[in-house]
Amino acid sequence: MTSSTVSTAIAATATPPDSPAVVFADVEAAARRLAGKAVVTPLLPVPALEAQLGARVFVKPEVLQRTGSFKFRGAYNKLAQLSTEERKRGVVAFSSGNHAQGVAAAAQLFGAPAVIVMPSDAPDIKVANTRGYGAEVVLYDRDREDREAIARGFTQARGMTLVPPFDDPAIIAGQGTVGLEIARQADTAGAKLDLALTCCGGGGLTAGTALALKTLSPATQIHAVEPAGFDDTCRSLLAGERLANAPGRKSFCDALLSPMPGALTFPLNRSLLAGALAVTDAEVAAAMAFAFRTLKLVVEPGGAVALAALLSGKLPVQGKTVAVILSGGNVDWSTFQQALSSAGA
Amino acid sequence: MTSSTVSTAIAATATPPDSPAVVFADVEAAARRLAGKAVVTPLLPVPALEAQLGARVFVKPEVLQRTGSFKFRGAYNKLAQLSTEERKRGVVAFSSGNHAQGVAAAAQLFGAPAVIVMPSDAPDIKVANTRGYGAEVVLYDRDREDREAIARGFTQARGMTLVPPFDDPAIIAGQGTVGLEIARQADTAGAKLDLALTCCGGGGLTAGTALALKTLSPATQIHAVEPAGFDDTCRSLLAGERLANAPGRKSFCDALLSPMPGALTFPLNRSLLAGALAVTDAEVAAAMAFAFRTLKLVVEPGGAVALAALLSGKLPVQGKTVAVILSGGNVDWSTFQQALSSAGA
Repeated sequence: MTSSTVSTAIAATATPPDSPAVVFADVEAAARRLAGKAVVTPLLPVPALEAQLGARVFVKPEVLQRTGSFKFRGAYNKLAQLSTEERKRGVVAFSSGNHAQGVAAAAQLFGAPAVIVMPSDAPDIKVANTRGYGAEVVLYDRDREDREAIARGFTQARGMTLVPPFDDPAIIAGQGTVGLEIARQADTAGAKLDLALTCCGGGGLTAGTALALKTLSPATQIHAVEPAGFDDTCRSLLAGERLANAPGRKSFCDALLSPMPGALTFPLNRSLLAGALAVTDAEVAAAMAFAFRTLKLVVEPGGAVALAALLSGKLPVQGKTVAVILSGGNVDWSTFQQALSSAGA
Repeated sequence: MTSSTVSTAIAATATPPDSPAVVFADVEAAARRLAGKAVVTPLLPVPALEAQLGARVFVKPEVLQRTGSFKFRGAYNKLAQLSTEERKRGVVAFSSGNHAQGVAAAAQLFGAPAVIVMPSDAPDIKVANTRGYGAEVVLYDRDREDREAIARGFTQARGMTLVPPFDDPAIIAGQGTVGLEIARQADTAGAKLDLALTCCGGGGLTAGTALALKTLSPATQIHAVEPAGFDDTCRSLLAGERLANAPGRKSFCDALLSPMPGALTFPLNRSLLAGALAVTDAEVAAAMAFAFRTLKLVVEPGGAVALAALLSGKLPVQGKTVAVILSGGNVDWSTFQQALSSAGA
């Protein structure tokens, strides 16, 4: 596990992009498409943290979502908008595992063929589940091969539609239904959210959620949380432009290792986020152990970064009401054991 | 882990008891008291089981309940009905751990002192959490001391009110809100439940849930599930009278080791249940592993018996719609590791 510096950024601008890739109505339309297909995951109170942090905390466990992560939402929203002919030819995606499962499960529901290009070091559970949803899995070497080129091969040879992991309006709108649900559920619980923390890789969940939350609850300050060494969104917000992660970094947050913010997601996040911050693998492991002990939820490393930011005290939360997204739970038993043991569970 | 015979019983009679300890209106009243205090746990679909079992399956994860098990419901409902004076003198309970936490957390919310009598071999997490809710924990030797006598000492010396673990109308009605929620949530999901499986120790959750479910969904067949060696409800249903478990049996389902059905719970269960069955510790461990891998939920041994009954194929479920209660998730990491390793996770 790496332990590197941790930084916090405040977005340089609150100006919305000139022609945003996604607007709130797109998120509402996605919610209608997902009704009865995606799980409306609960917004669970965590009374144990009231004494510990002096904050009212809710978690949004997307680990309980179909396929074990929020990724099903965007994938289903994308496939729902393809033509019958396009669905017949099928879809192709590249993903370390959660988007893979989301696309595979959505394709299965639509009866569409799916090819998923996955790194050969993806967690076994993610590869097995993706195959379990009926997809054809093509493994590639993360260090030597170009997954986008492999995926393009399938779009050209078989006329398949590429389903991008985050930089696509339908994907962003679908992931935004997480934020839509949080806003409505907080309202039902009589809670006014001061803060919301999202796990951030390429920024699709973050952008969609921020769009929905800022529309319905403008006072909520939204922070993206990334693994240390993969804090591209954090540094990009500070710089005001998209920056890539330095090569050769390692993190066990396999779901959040995308190289740089998206061309569509970054302008949205730049205008909507209050900031971004990074957490170490050790902080993530401690959050996974907390989720096991107190929340009774299985959270994968990448799904625990937002909770890690809360628990490690990186943001002042006393007296505040906070929502934290737990974005996924697809973790191999061996990795889970290592993480909890390292956290002294 | 023990591996003993497994039996299924069909209740000998459908005649309700002459004057039942609890009626449906009591469950409705409990639900009103619990509103905003207990978590309305979701009823989650498990699409992965549709292909595997040919059944539509929902789980009711009470692991997400306040204190990590359904026990908070009954305890809070009981304390809500005490007088201010009674609450001031406080409450006493004996429990291996989940009822302990439920009573301690409810007492804390009411500002009432609580003494909890727990076996010295209770899981560490249960003892620590009970103390964490501000209760005074008194440990006793399970083999040599009489926990009820110790508890009676506190009722006499300090005027405390005993909060029984299951054989009390307010406790049964509180636990029954699990069944009330299942019936309403299944209705919202457009599901007609053919079967419901509940975890069964002393029978409070089972009786309350069966009462609510049979009232709102009379066609649902409800089965109690017990650990092998502690199948007192199963054998009592067959015999038509309350029978105790043989001494000296062992099971790692620490939450379900009560000696015999309750005087109040048994008549209700006899008139409401379609049957009861038992599962081995190995089947329970396999269910815990399934919950980890597929449901992303941490389920303790006693909380996994109903799921174990479903997964081990002990009931014909093809073409049926089934609800399964996961009653608690308070399990030490060491026990969890052993269970999942033994199940080949």
